[in-house]
Amino acid sequence: MSISKQEVVSRYLPEVLQPGTRAEAFAPSNIALCKYWGKRDVELNLPINSSLSISLGDLGSLTSITESEIGVDQVYLNDEALSADSRFAKKVLAFLELFRRELRQPVIVRTTNNIPTAAGLASSASGFAALTLAINDFYGLELSDNCLSAFARMGSGSASRSIYQGFVEWNKGSSVDGMDSCAQQLDYKWPGFRIGLLKVAIGEKKVDSRAGMQRTVESAALYGAWPQQAENDLVTIKRAIVDRDLQLLGQTAEHNALSMHATMIASWPPLLYWQPESVAAMHRVWELRESGVSIYLTMDAGPNLKLIYQQADESRIRDAFPELLDVDIVAPFD
Amino acid sequence: MSISKQEVVSRYLPEVLQPGTRAEAFAPSNIALCKYWGKRDVELNLPINSSLSISLGDLGSLTSITESEIGVDQVYLNDEALSADSRFAKKVLAFLELFRRELRQPVIVRTTNNIPTAAGLASSASGFAALTLAINDFYGLELSDNCLSAFARMGSGSASRSIYQGFVEWNKGSSVDGMDSCAQQLDYKWPGFRIGLLKVAIGEKKVDSRAGMQRTVESAALYGAWPQQAENDLVTIKRAIVDRDLQLLGQTAEHNALSMHATMIASWPPLLYWQPESVAAMHRVWELRESGVSIYLTMDAGPNLKLIYQQADESRIRDAFPELLDVDIVAPFD
Repeated sequence: MSISKQEVVSRYLPEVLQPGTRAEAFAPSNIALCKYWGKRDVELNLPINSSLSISLGDLGSLTSITESEIGVDQVYLNDEALSADSRFAKKVLAFLELFRRELRQPVIVRTTNNIPTAAGLASSASGFAALTLAINDFYGLELSDNCLSAFARMGSGSASRSIYQGFVEWNKGSSVDGMDSCAQQLDYKWPGFRIGLLKVAIGEKKVDSRAGMQRTVESAALYGAWPQQAENDLVTIKRAIVDRDLQLLGQTAEHNALSMHATMIASWPPLLYWQPESVAAMHRVWELRESGVSIYLTMDAGPNLKLIYQQADESRIRDAFPELLDVDIVAPFD
Repeated sequence: MSISKQEVVSRYLPEVLQPGTRAEAFAPSNIALCKYWGKRDVELNLPINSSLSISLGDLGSLTSITESEIGVDQVYLNDEALSADSRFAKKVLAFLELFRRELRQPVIVRTTNNIPTAAGLASSASGFAALTLAINDFYGLELSDNCLSAFARMGSGSASRSIYQGFVEWNKGSSVDGMDSCAQQLDYKWPGFRIGLLKVAIGEKKVDSRAGMQRTVESAALYGAWPQQAENDLVTIKRAIVDRDLQLLGQTAEHNALSMHATMIASWPPLLYWQPESVAAMHRVWELRESGVSIYLTMDAGPNLKLIYQQADESRIRDAFPELLDVDIVAPFD
C-alpha cells in the first residue's frame, strides 16, 4: 500500500503557512556514477537501489517564486511564459500544490536552466531540487536537509541528489513513507576530478526514464541481478573516491552504467537509448583507453556520453574529442 | 572434473578402424532463435543452457577426406592449401586426431563454404558438423546421430545443431561426459518462414565467441538470470513453431538475442559486438515493425543482423532493406 505524496508532505508542514513575497534557490545538475534504475514505489519515487552522483557545480537550475498580482498561477521556463496546460507547467504546479494547504494566493514560478542545451542533460533533477528549496523558503517551512531531499525526490527521483554539491549518496531507504530515502553529501573532495559531456545525438527520447525503468522492472529477467550489483558498485565507488583511485572509480562507474543499459536492452519491447553515434563514441573511448589514457564513460537514459577522467589527462582527451563540452565541477573541490 | 575429448571419443570408436579412400559430407549453417551463451564445461563445450536454431538449407560447408599420397596431412579451405600451422588447419587436424587411433595414414581434408562471405556468417558450426560426418564415413565409425551431434559439439558448440536441417533443438544435457548434450531435429515444418541476412559491418571481431562467453560468465552479474530466461524462451519458441505464430516466435527470439547481448554489455571489460551501423539497422527494423510489418531481428556475437519474417511480407521488407541477402531455407519446408 502506497501512501500519497500529499499525505507525506502534510505531516511536515507547519499549522499555518507564512508565505513571503519572494524566494529564489539554485540547485546543480548531477551525474550518477552508480545509477538509479527501478522504483519500489511509483507514487513516491522510492528506488529499488541506492545511488551515488557528482553534482555539477554552478550548472543547474535557478528557480524563483514570487507573489502574483494577476490572480492566477504562472510558470516561466527560461524567461518564456508557459501555457497552464503545458506539461512542464502542470508538473511544477502539481508539485507546488502539495505544499500550499488552504492558501490559494497565486504565485509566479520562474525557472532558468543554465545547462547548455547542447549538453543534452536532463534538467528535471536540478529543477525539482531548486523548486523544493524555493518552496521551503517561500512558505517558511524550515525543513531539514534530509526532508528537502526526500521531498525533491517525490518530484523527480534523482532530484534528491541535486540538493547537494560534490559527491552525493542517495540511500534507498526502507520506510513506507520514504522519508529515509534521501540523499546525503559525502565528505570527500577530489581536486582534478573531471566530468566531460560528449553530446553525440539530439532528439526527444521516445520513452522517458519513468516509463523506461518501469518497463525494465516488469519485463527484463536480467534486471533481477541489478539491485545487488548496484549496491556492490556503490560500495566500490565510495572506496575509489576515498582513495582517489580513478581506475577503480571509472571501471566501476562504466560497468554500472553499461549494466543499467543492459537491463534496458533486455526489456520487452527493447529499450535502446543508443544511437549509431553513441556506439561510435563508445568505441572511440575504448580505443583511447587502450592507447593508455585513463578515461571512462557513463551514460544515462539517452544517447549521450559523459566522460570520467582527471585534469592531468585533459589535453589528450580534448585532442581526441574536440567536441567535448566543459563541465565546471572544479569549484567544489579545487 | 572435466573428462578430455579424447577420452570421450575413444569410448565410441571400434577396435579397429577401417578407413575408406574418400568420404564427403555436407552440413548446413544454422541461426539460433534461442541462443547458446555460456559453457558449463570448457573442454567439451557443454552449454549452460539449451538452445534452438533453424538450419539454412543448402548454405553451409562441404567437407571431404581423402587418402594422401604425399606422406603428410593437408588441409584446404575454399580450394586453397593452408600451411600446417595456420589456425584453421590446426583446429581441423586436432579434431581429426581424436578419431584416428594408431592409424597414421595421412589424409587430405578439403572444406568449401558456400556461404557468401558477404553474409558475415560464422562457418565453424557447419564446418565442424561436416567434418564430423565426413570422419564418421571415412573411418567407418557408424556412429548414431546423437553421437555425431555430440562429437560435432566438441569441435564447436553450435556445430551440434548443424548436423540437422529444419528446426533443431540442442538439449544442454547433464552428464559429465556430455553425451546427452546433443541436438535433435524437431518434427515441425513452417512453409513461408524466412530468415534474411542483413550485413551491416565487416571486420574480424576482437573477441571470439569462446572468449566472449567465458568473460560474460565470469564478470557479468546480470548473466545470473540468463539460463532460466533461455530455458523459458526455448519453450515459448517451440510453441510458436508448432502454432506457426510469427509474432510470438519473433518477439521471443528478438528478446532472447538482445538479452544475450545485454549479458555481454554487462561484462567487464564490456563486450559490445555492435557497430554504429548495427544500431542504425536495429532502429530501422523497429520503425518498420511500428509501421505494421511483422519483422523481428536476431543477432549473434557480431555486428550483423538476421531478420525473421514470413514470405507474405517479403516484398515490403526488401523495399525497406534493399541490401538484404537471401537465405534459402525454403527447401526443407516448402
